[in-house]
Amino acid sequence: MTDNQTQFSVTPINKVRVSKRANYDKETVHAILDEGLIAQVGFVQDDQPFVLPMAYGRIGDQLYIHGAKATRMLKQLKLGLPICINVTLVDGLVVGRSAFHHSMNFRSVNIHGTARLVEDEKEKYDALVAITDHLAPGRWDETRETTQKEINATTVIALTIEQAAAKIRTGMPIDDEADYALDHWAGIVPITTAFGPAIDDTRLKEGIPVAESIRKLTSRR
Amino acid sequence: MTDNQTQFSVTPINKVRVSKRANYDKETVHAILDEGLIAQVGFVQDDQPFVLPMAYGRIGDQLYIHGAKATRMLKQLKLGLPICINVTLVDGLVVGRSAFHHSMNFRSVNIHGTARLVEDEKEKYDALVAITDHLAPGRWDETRETTQKEINATTVIALTIEQAAAKIRTGMPIDDEADYALDHWAGIVPITTAFGPAIDDTRLKEGIPVAESIRKLTSRR
Repeated sequence: MTDNQTQFSVTPINKVRVSKRANYDKETVHAILDEGLIAQVGFVQDDQPFVLPMAYGRIGDQLYIHGAKATRMLKQLKLGLPICINVTLVDGLVVGRSAFHHSMNFRSVNIHGTARLVEDEKEKYDALVAITDHLAPGRWDETRETTQKEINATTVIALTIEQAAAKIRTGMPIDDEADYALDHWAGIVPITTAFGPAIDDTRLKEGIPVAESIRKLTSRR
Repeated sequence: MTDNQTQFSVTPINKVRVSKRANYDKETVHAILDEGLIAQVGFVQDDQPFVLPMAYGRIGDQLYIHGAKATRMLKQLKLGLPICINVTLVDGLVVGRSAFHHSMNFRSVNIHGTARLVEDEKEKYDALVAITDHLAPGRWDETRETTQKEINATTVIALTIEQAAAKIRTGMPIDDEADYALDHWAGIVPITTAFGPAIDDTRLKEGIPVAESIRKLTSRR
């Protein structure tokens, strides 16, 4: 795949079964990743699957997760293990006339690849900025300068967003044709996520206003 | 573990590394599962980890997921594979004075076990009711009666909630003691999930009011 392609290649790994819900546009995949709150990170240890929720950040086609050096998962992932990451935004309940046609509206991204330990100091620094700024762009620059000791205590893992696909469902229920004549209510229940209002730390020095990045985040709809 | 215990046993599989965030109370685990929107289901196929978001329902110590018979995952899970399920509610951003002490407030449950195909007709029916009623209790009874054909077309998988643990973070950032004197803003940004208002299906028959279960869901704070 060349860099200027706008779509991910479809492979047995990332192919979505229900093709009307599949989307392999890079732009779509990136937009979902940028809006997501947490990544669900899956890996295998002693033949057991593990799934753990983690903060993350994206720079171009690299997805970054981080954690304390002691974390079991990061110890494993450093070894270059296969990894699967899912980010899902739930947009609504789809309420059909039959239970069978109940569903959810959602935007979801799945990525498969191999975990890579980030060792380059510049890349590691940039990844930490991306993770901190993921939901509140500009937050990194508002914080106390990060120390080398803090950076050393943190493990950063990268995954290339390449074996990736989005799966999206929108719109109304698709009921059996005969059921549309019935008297059961059907429709959708939108689900929305809201940020804020921000709450000052109980030990915040007096007279310090809410940070700019946080004001922007909480004023979003 | 006997049934009347209120706590899950702590094992190498479900032990949470940071003990102050660990919670093994059954009641706590069940409450998080009952509030969650989707389960992230992890399994292994050809040494590759897979993580897929799914609707779910709970009855006692059984967690149920379902899907079309054709779904790759369900075909695998029917074979009695090891499975890991994570349900996470994100409650807020934790904004420290240093990037290093940024975090998230969340309530999360991890369950490990072996997938079990639900073959008993009564259990399968009850599981489908539980999944349909998960977010909108009472919805099943409001729908057009489910047919045997629909039930036959659906695969239901159960997981026993036993190797389970909750991981919870609440409250303000824990900054370095020296940093509390600095002029950086710190605090938390609550994240809330809201349902509704409900939107009628574009093909809804005239004069049908929003269903009771949905009205209850959307009037919740």
